[in-house]
Amino acid sequence: MKDKPLILVSNDDGFDAKGIMQLIRLMQEIGDVFVVAPDRPQSAKGHAITIDAPLKYKQHEEFDFPFYICNGTSADAVKLALRKIMPRMPDLVVSGINHGSNSSVSLIYSGTMAAVIEAAMQGIPAIGFSLLDYSPEADFEPSADIIRKITKEALKQGIPAHHCLNVNIPKTDKIRGIKLCRQARGKWIEDFDVRQDPHKRTYMWLTGYYEITDEGKDTDEFALSNDYVSVVPVQYDLTDYAYLEELKKWKLDE
Amino acid sequence: MKDKPLILVSNDDGFDAKGIMQLIRLMQEIGDVFVVAPDRPQSAKGHAITIDAPLKYKQHEEFDFPFYICNGTSADAVKLALRKIMPRMPDLVVSGINHGSNSSVSLIYSGTMAAVIEAAMQGIPAIGFSLLDYSPEADFEPSADIIRKITKEALKQGIPAHHCLNVNIPKTDKIRGIKLCRQARGKWIEDFDVRQDPHKRTYMWLTGYYEITDEGKDTDEFALSNDYVSVVPVQYDLTDYAYLEELKKWKLDE
Repeated sequence: MKDKPLILVSNDDGFDAKGIMQLIRLMQEIGDVFVVAPDRPQSAKGHAITIDAPLKYKQHEEFDFPFYICNGTSADAVKLALRKIMPRMPDLVVSGINHGSNSSVSLIYSGTMAAVIEAAMQGIPAIGFSLLDYSPEADFEPSADIIRKITKEALKQGIPAHHCLNVNIPKTDKIRGIKLCRQARGKWIEDFDVRQDPHKRTYMWLTGYYEITDEGKDTDEFALSNDYVSVVPVQYDLTDYAYLEELKKWKLDE
Repeated sequence: MKDKPLILVSNDDGFDAKGIMQLIRLMQEIGDVFVVAPDRPQSAKGHAITIDAPLKYKQHEEFDFPFYICNGTSADAVKLALRKIMPRMPDLVVSGINHGSNSSVSLIYSGTMAAVIEAAMQGIPAIGFSLLDYSPEADFEPSADIIRKITKEALKQGIPAHHCLNVNIPKTDKIRGIKLCRQARGKWIEDFDVRQDPHKRTYMWLTGYYEITDEGKDTDEFALSNDYVSVVPVQYDLTDYAYLEELKKWKLDE
């Protein structure tokens, strides 16, 4: 580690979201900041990448530090940053601050965390920060000390290659502390808001609500609902090792 | 289980891909088939869902069984099928046959497997099938017996709620058998093919190659490279439980 770490900042709400500007400011206290962010909101795009359309990027002209905007997803932004735009691999990748929760299974749909997992896949320590406030005008100020503390501790302790952190911050100005957690079990119960356009054609908006199916007190959902910050260590080997043993009973190779 | 299971078929290559037509035919031998598939290719869209644009679906007019086409991603297609279009929850969801591999970390980017994981999240048994041949004209015939066997065994044994299978099939007419595997460790080394459009504006195509970083003989990559079908049981709790213990050493709550 150099004296000043090189930190890549990205997000999925787009380069002009309030959350990324707050994260940039916080990271500038800690290291040399390099930004590569999508040119428009890419929320809920999961780990999408762009293979069927051309990618472009350009420098943001308003800032005196490296700030690039690209036309892809958050995962594209990190790929572009690491392989094309940055002068060297960063010491840390941070993503966010997301406007809204990425706890429990929302992690699966999250563009914020796709950027983080993309970095982890390349062996670079990475942390995603999300605030449980979907408003574009969310107040990120109460999150500042938490983000400083977790980032500094991550740089000090080091995050091993291929691991990363999913940090969710409750919407409160009375944060009670930080809890290490596992991802809560839960699911989205979708609903479709059916409407008609002016030409009488039917269309729908995807909506729904989140249902927690986990009574555990060691989950991110439990921590957040009690005004604690949740820190879930994340890895991307989706093998179901316990079930792999079960499957040996199946008669597949006859 | 009813005498004839109700099977939802989806994919990410789009409703008119050769692979889904083969999968539909195979499933029609086994159960009552219901299709909901994207109206265009949605490859590498990961677990993206559509929350910023209206969704629509319509019935395909050429078939005498339920075949619906929607304008979203593969995850959207499954959400629409389960919550809006199907008369009841299916007994099984299958996705594919994908034109191309979804082994190792490609699982993370895979729309085929997003459909499968979406079903698993709703507690429905689900299997993704992928053939290691990207050609639109790929020959799916050698895969037929494998897909029949795995599907029938899955229906017989039952896949427990919230679990699913990622099946990859080598491109060979001499398949040596089926191996239960774990997801190989590996990564994509991206490259960007930089070009100029007729107006001298620079754009890029995302390209690159896959690098395996796993010497294990129990991986999907090892099985496939030896002409075996790989079956990886998949779950979607991304918590890194081993690292969670390590993190307790960090000084976060002072």
